[in-house]
Amino acid sequence: MKLAISGKGGVGKTTIASALIKAFAQRRSTVYAIDADPDACLAAGIGIADEEARKIKPVVEMRDLIRSKSGGGTFYVLNPKLDDAVDEYCYKQGNILFLRMGDVKKGGSECYCRENTFLNALLSSLLLDKDDVVIMDMGAGIEHLTRGTARGVDMMLVVVEPSKNSINTALRVQQMAGDLGIEKVKVIGNKIGSAKQKEFIEKSFPDGDVLGFIPFNDSLWINAMESQDTVESGRDLLGQIGEVSKMIEKEVGDSGQG
Amino acid sequence: MKLAISGKGGVGKTTIASALIKAFAQRRSTVYAIDADPDACLAAGIGIADEEARKIKPVVEMRDLIRSKSGGGTFYVLNPKLDDAVDEYCYKQGNILFLRMGDVKKGGSECYCRENTFLNALLSSLLLDKDDVVIMDMGAGIEHLTRGTARGVDMMLVVVEPSKNSINTALRVQQMAGDLGIEKVKVIGNKIGSAKQKEFIEKSFPDGDVLGFIPFNDSLWINAMESQDTVESGRDLLGQIGEVSKMIEKEVGDSGQG
Repeated sequence: MKLAISGKGGVGKTTIASALIKAFAQRRSTVYAIDADPDACLAAGIGIADEEARKIKPVVEMRDLIRSKSGGGTFYVLNPKLDDAVDEYCYKQGNILFLRMGDVKKGGSECYCRENTFLNALLSSLLLDKDDVVIMDMGAGIEHLTRGTARGVDMMLVVVEPSKNSINTALRVQQMAGDLGIEKVKVIGNKIGSAKQKEFIEKSFPDGDVLGFIPFNDSLWINAMESQDTVESGRDLLGQIGEVSKMIEKEVGDSGQG
Repeated sequence: MKLAISGKGGVGKTTIASALIKAFAQRRSTVYAIDADPDACLAAGIGIADEEARKIKPVVEMRDLIRSKSGGGTFYVLNPKLDDAVDEYCYKQGNILFLRMGDVKKGGSECYCRENTFLNALLSSLLLDKDDVVIMDMGAGIEHLTRGTARGVDMMLVVVEPSKNSINTALRVQQMAGDLGIEKVKVIGNKIGSAKQKEFIEKSFPDGDVLGFIPFNDSLWINAMESQDTVESGRDLLGQIGEVSKMIEKEVGDSGQG
């Protein structure tokens, strides 16, 4: 099962992605956690220290390796669990395999088109076992959609907060994910502090589109000055996301080996 | 004077940009408000209705017009105040001239490289009177910096909130804006709820880098379900940003005609 997490900047994409990665890791064989945002903090979100994360080679540099394995052809499969050669591109934390799309570059050097194109190819080439889950944390905004980076995922999850702007972005994402042929595009409501906010989000989308809600937590701002992982562990987020992860399995029709 | 507003997704770039546009419009001749984010909401931020904003042609379509005016040469100047031909690319609201970089595109169609390249060329070609101000609201994250979209601005303003992640992004932005040759890169602290949060931001940057602080407002979440402009008018933000706008003038050494 392959999932992408999308939404307006600041709605909590990385927080939700990190929680889903941890939730699936508790009951699935392997979870691939892919950071598709060059302004990245998914590593911190799942508890990988900054120094460790910086050592991981970005997957865009894997291109030559894959070319050599495919013998110059266009078809290749990649199974990082079996292939020692990809070890330097993956950080293993238990049954979580962390990968990142690209490095921070010099100002004025170039765009990230190459990284996005390659990440999409990699996503298609990943050989998954029935029980494996891929979760990609996308960059803020809509350019990853016009680029088609996440084309081929089974579900696009759009995180919204109770604000008109984040809902406008989500409606754009739904439309554009449809253009990409992604059939399932579902919504997670984050930072919910009142019944009115919940209702506001619910009535903005067709029935059945909102998979679940995550409450606003007052300690968020206190913990935000610490590392991202501390934020989550202070929030009982893992319990709250558990139901959402089961809804995802049901919608996609993939409950792993179970 | 040309300014760009940058920072991590969700820190309040568009809110701060809108407030600065309004503050400068009160004492300067013309303010160019440029939305450089295709997932745009600067129009709403300065009170332009969605229907009106959608009618404005994105500036990337201005290319042929500019080519014809420059006679095929590479040097051209553009003064939208005097040039009727650019009217369809500008929305005039009092002495604010609103422009937007690009349209929302179909999923999987293409990147926004062309738009960013053209916006940078436009920024260089804008003929400003001494009293004019340009304010560009950049997309979330760092790709506009690796693309060099804002190269040539007098100051890059980086908005941060009291979170480690937003400060990490700001430190990256400072580095990359330096790569672009932007000499002044200053910080605005947003969503400040305590002395501890203020101190946390202050000690993350060299002395003199933080131009000012904007308090967190409890009514933010209530108003966020309305339009963006309502959010600001409910916040007394204009009073709070006034001091920051004067600090900017002092730093850049440009106080207009006054």
